[in-house]
Amino acid sequence: MSDLLPLPVGFSAVGIRCGIKADPQKRDLALFVSDRPCVAAGVFTTNLVCGAPVKVSRDRLPRATARAVVINSGNSNAATGERGIADAKRMTGWVADQIGAAPDDVLVGSTGVIGRFLPMDVLESGIPAAAKQLAATPEAFHLAAQSMMTTDTFPKQATQTLTIGGKTVRISGACKGAAMIAPNMATMLCVIMTDVELALNDAAPLLKHAVQDSFNCISVDGHESTSDTVVLLANGASGVAIRSSEERAQFQSALDEVAMKLSTDIIRDAEGAHHFVELNVTGCRSRDDAFRIAKTIADSPLVKTAICGADPNWGRIVSAAGYAGVPLQEADMTLVVNNFLLYKDGAPIDFDAKAVSSSLRDNRNVVVELKLNHGTEKVRYWTADLTKEYVELNADYTT
Amino acid sequence: MSDLLPLPVGFSAVGIRCGIKADPQKRDLALFVSDRPCVAAGVFTTNLVCGAPVKVSRDRLPRATARAVVINSGNSNAATGERGIADAKRMTGWVADQIGAAPDDVLVGSTGVIGRFLPMDVLESGIPAAAKQLAATPEAFHLAAQSMMTTDTFPKQATQTLTIGGKTVRISGACKGAAMIAPNMATMLCVIMTDVELALNDAAPLLKHAVQDSFNCISVDGHESTSDTVVLLANGASGVAIRSSEERAQFQSALDEVAMKLSTDIIRDAEGAHHFVELNVTGCRSRDDAFRIAKTIADSPLVKTAICGADPNWGRIVSAAGYAGVPLQEADMTLVVNNFLLYKDGAPIDFDAKAVSSSLRDNRNVVVELKLNHGTEKVRYWTADLTKEYVELNADYTT
Repeated sequence: MSDLLPLPVGFSAVGIRCGIKADPQKRDLALFVSDRPCVAAGVFTTNLVCGAPVKVSRDRLPRATARAVVINSGNSNAATGERGIADAKRMTGWVADQIGAAPDDVLVGSTGVIGRFLPMDVLESGIPAAAKQLAATPEAFHLAAQSMMTTDTFPKQATQTLTIGGKTVRISGACKGAAMIAPNMATMLCVIMTDVELALNDAAPLLKHAVQDSFNCISVDGHESTSDTVVLLANGASGVAIRSSEERAQFQSALDEVAMKLSTDIIRDAEGAHHFVELNVTGCRSRDDAFRIAKTIADSPLVKTAICGADPNWGRIVSAAGYAGVPLQEADMTLVVNNFLLYKDGAPIDFDAKAVSSSLRDNRNVVVELKLNHGTEKVRYWTADLTKEYVELNADYTT
Repeated sequence: MSDLLPLPVGFSAVGIRCGIKADPQKRDLALFVSDRPCVAAGVFTTNLVCGAPVKVSRDRLPRATARAVVINSGNSNAATGERGIADAKRMTGWVADQIGAAPDDVLVGSTGVIGRFLPMDVLESGIPAAAKQLAATPEAFHLAAQSMMTTDTFPKQATQTLTIGGKTVRISGACKGAAMIAPNMATMLCVIMTDVELALNDAAPLLKHAVQDSFNCISVDGHESTSDTVVLLANGASGVAIRSSEERAQFQSALDEVAMKLSTDIIRDAEGAHHFVELNVTGCRSRDDAFRIAKTIADSPLVKTAICGADPNWGRIVSAAGYAGVPLQEADMTLVVNNFLLYKDGAPIDFDAKAVSSSLRDNRNVVVELKLNHGTEKVRYWTADLTKEYVELNADYTT
């Protein structure tokens, strides 16, 4: 079990098994509840085929009176039509009944197989059972994070404590992976809670900034999920309000840290992965150029299998840059992998292939640096290798 | 060994081992030569990081005096800078010396690992040795096709015979796969020869049309190659010229067949593949819409692993359509896999999961039909599943 992390003041959580997943050992229902109204913002998948919970939660955000998030794993309630939307709304209604809130003040997320209707009977009895066990403890937070998991091998949590105006405030979040991960607005399910007081107009831009260089810069397999959701809840229970630009910058920085930790944990736990790959694409005309190149490299199965096999086949990396849709020529590029220079200004470099291969084999962390000579913009991007275990896991998911 | 196929009149071929590949059993040098000048056109990769042979051949096409194509496997001469271009030109010069042609009338293709300089010594002795064995026989054509192979498990050839103005003419082609296959103008190396006489202005549009619905509609792994080249050589040796629009249509149709057979053979021999997948995306506003959706589905590792595992996880298919960049909603889509209706007008259908799974397990050929209600445009696209063998093959390619 990873370290137990605290919730911010005024928040409680719970994670139980209600019976959605086939495996009787696995939890599948989580609640995150604030004892008072929260300013809330969300970012969601841009996939046009999105889950019913995405549609319901997106309609309700931003708002100044959010009270809870209910999340089930084992079924994504996506591609389920009108009935799926009605089911998602019923879930929020049952939570609202338990905590004395309006249904619209409850947000909802679902993750798991696409295209099956939710088993509403187990949720109807499970939600009240869960609500009775809500607790403001690190253990409860941990179980809630665990209950969001699908093929994840560990729960993903992060916390930051900061002092504003002499008072301690906290940001805590939980998210889940571990496949169908490709960045576009946000990735999979994530709840971030804080006890600061935020203005309604501040919540969305703060969250967007945090997501931009974290959840939007990771890819496991390039398949954009139907369920991507990141929700930020700020309940003000610490008595601290974020008002000045200094406080805003301080809070943003801590929020960015939480988002970074959570999103990179998704890559650390990518399905079947042996390597955690950091791609630094630098020297570009624009961040968008750098992002396109990084994403194209990250999504190439040939790059990912080469890293899996500790194969210093750097041609796969520079050739992926060539079809990223960014104007460039070979002479613009220099490539460094794990501090080994492999390609300089468009020409191959004599390098010790055995040493590079050993470095890839012996280090779980791989750092790829592709340097262009176009400008000063850059991006940091994270991905995982493609392994036989990924194929195994995904060749037999629903049946 | 597959059936032996004839060359068109006036063409000869040869395939030998000259010593580029490490495996002493494997051939690695092919020549295709016409005894008289050919009208020639080519289509090439749009990858901005392209092989030196692509740059050299592209500069020389279209032309009315082409005489030969020289192809080596085992080294793609890509990402090799100025020295790579000089090496590619030297190869064409050595061929030109042997057949009594100008160097500019010789085209060149290379396939294999990226980023290594060609071993010019073995090519300097290998090219004259190969030229001495040129023959107009089906066996020579077969060996030439074999010499282009990298991880291919069988040589890819096709031929069409047609009667124009009472005379018999022929189109014969050879190509290779088997990874770094994603469509964008053309895929990997392909030589198509014909003994008809074509006008210089006709060659390029005829080839472009043939490539559009064949080589540009296949994907193994979504990684666009640095070396994609399709060359059409027409030497007129049959004494038949293509002049009327009827003759043009007849020739186009036969050329399309050859391109279709060759390109789908690449998918049949995709690295590690267990399934040959045909995607029919229909009912779209434009061919481009249909193409984007098909390519996005084809390139999703989650779709590919589901097919590998005979898992009727259709949510992965419709969710991939959702991030293809085409405006659509769930209710626009109906999905049929191997004749089983799985999703209709945006709603899940009760289906016999075991029967669909058996159908996927028992048939090497999988047919996926995604029907939209936007219009009448469509595309047929081919891909392969993603297997543990693909990962194995590509995790240990250069080392």
